[in-house]
Amino acid sequence: MKVKGILVVVSGFSGAGKGTVMKMLLEKYNNYRLSISATTRKPREGEENGREYFFKTKEEFEKMIEENRLIEYADYVGNYYGTPRDYVEKQLECGKDVILEIELQGALQVKEKFPETLLVFLTPPCAQELKARLEGRGTEDNNTIMARLKRAAEEAAYMDRYDCVLINDNLEKCVDDLHGIIQSEHWKAGRNKELIDKMRGELETLK
Amino acid sequence: MKVKGILVVVSGFSGAGKGTVMKMLLEKYNNYRLSISATTRKPREGEENGREYFFKTKEEFEKMIEENRLIEYADYVGNYYGTPRDYVEKQLECGKDVILEIELQGALQVKEKFPETLLVFLTPPCAQELKARLEGRGTEDNNTIMARLKRAAEEAAYMDRYDCVLINDNLEKCVDDLHGIIQSEHWKAGRNKELIDKMRGELETLK
Repeated sequence: MKVKGILVVVSGFSGAGKGTVMKMLLEKYNNYRLSISATTRKPREGEENGREYFFKTKEEFEKMIEENRLIEYADYVGNYYGTPRDYVEKQLECGKDVILEIELQGALQVKEKFPETLLVFLTPPCAQELKARLEGRGTEDNNTIMARLKRAAEEAAYMDRYDCVLINDNLEKCVDDLHGIIQSEHWKAGRNKELIDKMRGELETLK
Repeated sequence: MKVKGILVVVSGFSGAGKGTVMKMLLEKYNNYRLSISATTRKPREGEENGREYFFKTKEEFEKMIEENRLIEYADYVGNYYGTPRDYVEKQLECGKDVILEIELQGALQVKEKFPETLLVFLTPPCAQELKARLEGRGTEDNNTIMARLKRAAEEAAYMDRYDCVLINDNLEKCVDDLHGIIQSEHWKAGRNKELIDKMRGELETLK
């Protein structure tokens, strides 16, 4: 029986710790593949094509849209960001669970196209903690922090559109909980139609 | 914030290993409470009131039905079996995850009354294995085994009414998977409305 992988979207407030959680999840467990986005924004220093992003020209990106080679895309501040279909589909076929670390807008697009996608929203235990983490980074001025909190308040309106809301309080626990959530998904009855049909058929023959 | 426990129903084919899985789950993890059924059937040798079952007279049982003190009940071969409401509700309020090991008919009743119940169906990897386990018990004659397989074929028609279909191939793994399924359920967005509302309120204040 062919077991296909699960498509997982992880979103969350800026400052919720998505990047760190993803990094540790991939280091600790073998079965995951992180999808790499395509973008038209220019590479920053130290970024490599095919590692952080696939860097594309506007023309290349729009050709990918036309040819239906992206499973979601969005326009942020004048640049395109999107998820190439090819890599995701190949890994899922191989039975790998593929994780998209994308924002709200893309997450809802993916869920609409592929309703069996598992949407996970990462959040700190409280808003004060989110503010403290953004301030603790020390890399952003007060205006930027306020803009991120405002954006978080907008995103919070859509938290209940996600399947799971996962608190990132203790990093190690959060990574294990995320792993548990994804692995449990494999047992959902809706994902095991072949097994159910097989058992039905065999039991009819035996009885 | 008050975290309530999860109501879990575990059903499965006779021979799927429900009893052994339940026993090991309760031994290995602390958070679970197994609900004890009430029944009008006579205690067998070695059975204790309040351990295997709460043994009731027909009159007592029918009074419990009338007073709505059972969350489900059914009539099997002339005897009543049912789940007392009181214990289940108290443990859920305390945040314990309560497991009902009951059959199809009761499982569907509970899901209808409490749609947030998690229904798990336990199955061996294939029907031949189910037959081999029933034969391996050595306690049942061929007619009984055939009756159980016939019953399994009937139950298989309802497997997709369960939330999860869990294969019991390796006992240790099955117990850990069941634990993972139940624990992941705590992160479902629908079970975290208070957390979502709290984050929304706090972010509105901060922004």
